[in-house]
Amino acid sequence: MADTSNYDKLIIFDTTLRDGEQSPGVTLNADEKVEIARQLTRLGVNVIEAGFPVASPGDFNAVQRIAREVGSLMEGRTGKGRINEPVTICGLARCVENDIQTAYEAIREAPRHRIHVFLATSDIHLEFKLKITRSECKQRIREMVGFAKSLCEDIEFSPEDGGRSDREFLVEALTVAIEAGATTLNIPDTVGYNTPQQYGDLISYLREHTKGSENVVWSTHCHDDLGLATANTLSGVSNGARQVEVAINGIGERAGNTALEEIVMNVHTHPSAYKVQHTVDTKLLFATSRMVADLSGMSVQPNKAIVGRNAFLHESGIHQDGVLKHKSTYEIIRPEDVGVTSDNLALGKHSGRHAFKAKLDALGYGTPALPDAQFQSAFVKFKRLADSKKSGVTDGDLHALVADVRSASLAAVPSTELPADLPADATADPAAPRFTLLNMQVFTGVGITPTATVTLHDAHTGSDLTDVALAQNGPIEAVYSAIQRISGLDISLLNFSVSATSEGQDTLGKVAVRIARGTTDSATDPATPTLAAYGAEPKFTGLSTNVDIITASANAYLAALNRLVSHHSEDTRASHDVRNVNI
Amino acid sequence: MADTSNYDKLIIFDTTLRDGEQSPGVTLNADEKVEIARQLTRLGVNVIEAGFPVASPGDFNAVQRIAREVGSLMEGRTGKGRINEPVTICGLARCVENDIQTAYEAIREAPRHRIHVFLATSDIHLEFKLKITRSECKQRIREMVGFAKSLCEDIEFSPEDGGRSDREFLVEALTVAIEAGATTLNIPDTVGYNTPQQYGDLISYLREHTKGSENVVWSTHCHDDLGLATANTLSGVSNGARQVEVAINGIGERAGNTALEEIVMNVHTHPSAYKVQHTVDTKLLFATSRMVADLSGMSVQPNKAIVGRNAFLHESGIHQDGVLKHKSTYEIIRPEDVGVTSDNLALGKHSGRHAFKAKLDALGYGTPALPDAQFQSAFVKFKRLADSKKSGVTDGDLHALVADVRSASLAAVPSTELPADLPADATADPAAPRFTLLNMQVFTGVGITPTATVTLHDAHTGSDLTDVALAQNGPIEAVYSAIQRISGLDISLLNFSVSATSEGQDTLGKVAVRIARGTTDSATDPATPTLAAYGAEPKFTGLSTNVDIITASANAYLAALNRLVSHHSEDTRASHDVRNVNI
Repeated sequence: MADTSNYDKLIIFDTTLRDGEQSPGVTLNADEKVEIARQLTRLGVNVIEAGFPVASPGDFNAVQRIAREVGSLMEGRTGKGRINEPVTICGLARCVENDIQTAYEAIREAPRHRIHVFLATSDIHLEFKLKITRSECKQRIREMVGFAKSLCEDIEFSPEDGGRSDREFLVEALTVAIEAGATTLNIPDTVGYNTPQQYGDLISYLREHTKGSENVVWSTHCHDDLGLATANTLSGVSNGARQVEVAINGIGERAGNTALEEIVMNVHTHPSAYKVQHTVDTKLLFATSRMVADLSGMSVQPNKAIVGRNAFLHESGIHQDGVLKHKSTYEIIRPEDVGVTSDNLALGKHSGRHAFKAKLDALGYGTPALPDAQFQSAFVKFKRLADSKKSGVTDGDLHALVADVRSASLAAVPSTELPADLPADATADPAAPRFTLLNMQVFTGVGITPTATVTLHDAHTGSDLTDVALAQNGPIEAVYSAIQRISGLDISLLNFSVSATSEGQDTLGKVAVRIARGTTDSATDPATPTLAAYGAEPKFTGLSTNVDIITASANAYLAALNRLVSHHSEDTRASHDVRNVNI
Repeated sequence: MADTSNYDKLIIFDTTLRDGEQSPGVTLNADEKVEIARQLTRLGVNVIEAGFPVASPGDFNAVQRIAREVGSLMEGRTGKGRINEPVTICGLARCVENDIQTAYEAIREAPRHRIHVFLATSDIHLEFKLKITRSECKQRIREMVGFAKSLCEDIEFSPEDGGRSDREFLVEALTVAIEAGATTLNIPDTVGYNTPQQYGDLISYLREHTKGSENVVWSTHCHDDLGLATANTLSGVSNGARQVEVAINGIGERAGNTALEEIVMNVHTHPSAYKVQHTVDTKLLFATSRMVADLSGMSVQPNKAIVGRNAFLHESGIHQDGVLKHKSTYEIIRPEDVGVTSDNLALGKHSGRHAFKAKLDALGYGTPALPDAQFQSAFVKFKRLADSKKSGVTDGDLHALVADVRSASLAAVPSTELPADLPADATADPAAPRFTLLNMQVFTGVGITPTATVTLHDAHTGSDLTDVALAQNGPIEAVYSAIQRISGLDISLLNFSVSATSEGQDTLGKVAVRIARGTTDSATDPATPTLAAYGAEPKFTGLSTNVDIITASANAYLAALNRLVSHHSEDTRASHDVRNVNI
């Protein structure tokens, strides 16, 4: 291993919560964003772009909570070769005074904070989208970067669609940004069009020609439309960029952003090729990937580099033989370096609290593994699972169990946020989820109209409510209809998915549902680009894991429903014209 | 658009059926392989690596069937800028006489055929795996490439782990291969270790130093362990490679191979950067991707470049606004160029056979869209769906419907292949699946032991069989237990997944199951690398789509079971020591 201690620091700027959260179909609520931000600080990223505060009160609230609750955390960040400072919390803003002021209000309570201002500089954007001249563009940069600088020392500027902008004009615009106080210059390949050669040349050209270039950090922001985000980002680093904008699992608009885990492991594997050092604890990559996949609903394909289910599996006999003879024959990354453990059977029904905690730590759920209440709930579920599962509890089961507990906990209803149209009860436990499943009977088959009888406990009225429903489309629809009847709300099921958490006969089914209030246009095909598909109604995800798919489906729906009723007063979506951007 | 007619031809060598089929958990049977090979010829690839014939009689049979049934097809290949020759069918062989002879027997009936011989050249492989010296290595290449040449004109040689081999020795080994008759030299980065710079430099160095280099085609074969397969392949092309080894959706060992669709669309988008032309009909990329995902069970993540569900979706308001104002603001590839259509609602209950056929053509299912019997079955299903689905039939529904019909059709049992341990009946319809679902009653819930009563029709005895089962783990397990009891076979459920084919209230659930005979070790966690996880028992996939998840689960299981009973005499897996390799 090369000595990397003299290498330049590579700033890992994570945009999972901003650009990643803009993935079509993804909506994270404030609790989920705070949870992910906590994990990102433990992971050791240097900057968290927490959102686009002006987009909506919900976005503002989430960024502000992250600044307050995560901005000072040092938990898990220190140690050998790690970091001695808290994470920087960043908020995005267009080149508009109100955006910048709002971003500043959201981030200011974090000890380290940054405003990220952007304006398009390509002719096609100036002409068709912004309808301004080049000179007006520079003027706006000067004024607005200057205004941001008056509020905050750490200012990043991004020329949107920089990859397709005229180089000489880009140099002029960036020179203005530096003069006005920008400390980081980020060059987005907004539409994922550049080749690695082109993108690297662009970074090199801009560094050479922009006045004051040596006093700022140059940053990459690449999209994966042609499958080149990782290569383009690394080409930027080879040409002097010292910040990379990345997202866990590469989520983001269209084909997504550069995957954080790929950049980190490239630098880790080829230190002398890139000559930079990072502060990420690679052992947490797999758990972080699972958390983001679970909360965002964006699945990771089995053949995804670094974090895919198959990334370290060898199918062929010749490979297996090679691996058994000498590990490095086929392995360039040790699975345990990214948190993939092979110790599948460590836990059984006799495992105690201490062993369970140690295992969660080993899986990358940090120390403390989970907040106390969640840990307690996870342990109870683990013991129940260990009793019922004859084959032992696998790592996959534990990842699912943690996601499940997290989902249930995030659905807890603070009593101050009760929606106006549901009856509240002053005696209710403010931390309890509104509805829990007491009883369910389902009858279905071929040639039978599916029926479901469901009894829910309502924590806010203290009452048990039973109703029955039938359905045309199978038993799960019948269960959901019965729950809807009890809740008295009109709810649309937007998405429903089931996955297995382990192979074998007593596989756990993990159900994820996404719901919204009201009736949506059901004619949308996710395989095709329909601009109207993603409306302004907030969406809620619920997860549940059970060996019985119908029970898991019911509980996932209830988790989402509990989140929906708790969320009522929080407006996470603004109208389209100020909704997020992708740079 | 640049005039590409004078550019060199880039040979697209598809290894979906060889390297792709080695993805952990994937087992394609011969019918499925033939189906994919047909689609690849329509797509316009130049070489199909159909398998590793010596690995097992099943592999041999599949390669031979592809050579016979697909090797001469010109359907869909001709036309403007397209191909005037059939596809080359290639078989893989180790540097061993029996492998080479067996490969030749499998491919020889194709008008154009190729033997692909490989031998490792890196010191780590020579020392730990092959236990031979460098000089023995060269000797073996000379003899075995020479032997292959005595059988077949078109010979490809691959130095396995070329990316980590000593350059000077690699030049010596490749010079020997050319002298012995190799016409294509393929340089695998077997472990996905190289940077784009390193890989391009290697190709350039080898072309410069290998004697006779100008008379052979240089080829790339890259793996995606560090997320760089596409960039490395393109770097190879920039340095003179004129063949690329790729797989649909980038499937393959570990993190997989280079994705065909990414290479084709990079060349398509940047013709003047790479100065090569290809013969792929890009409009078939999306349908081909869906077919391979469905048959292999390897899902495609939403943010996958080119073929992911979100690849052309714009979430953010600013982007949507930009797209509406001027398409090229954010789009570098037109969705319709890769077969993603936005015409979601073209079909309803009044659509006729002609409109249905035209729509399938538009979705990329070729002309003829499907074999007559499958088309007829698809049309009947479509009419039933259009009647029951109030929101109209979407493109996603149609993709699922085609997969469903294909799955059912592939499960048909030729009467000559009846397993010995199941009663056969001379009056049976040889094309009918063995078991069909007549009736099913399921009772389940919370605090209820799930029970299922199932009646199947057995096409080979003509009888209707009913049995009942209970389960600890939910209603689907009860259904599967009842079906198992009726079949009299011991079957393991290896994998179970459900996905939604469209959003909205009457979403179709698509269930995929994978089964094998006998009881497998159920303690395997797919998230972790367990070498023993993938044994020698053949696995069978079944797909079914239904609004009712229990019915879909039953039918998917039956499709897999029918395939299992039809497959009995076909041995697709050999023991591990001759099982496939990954170069």
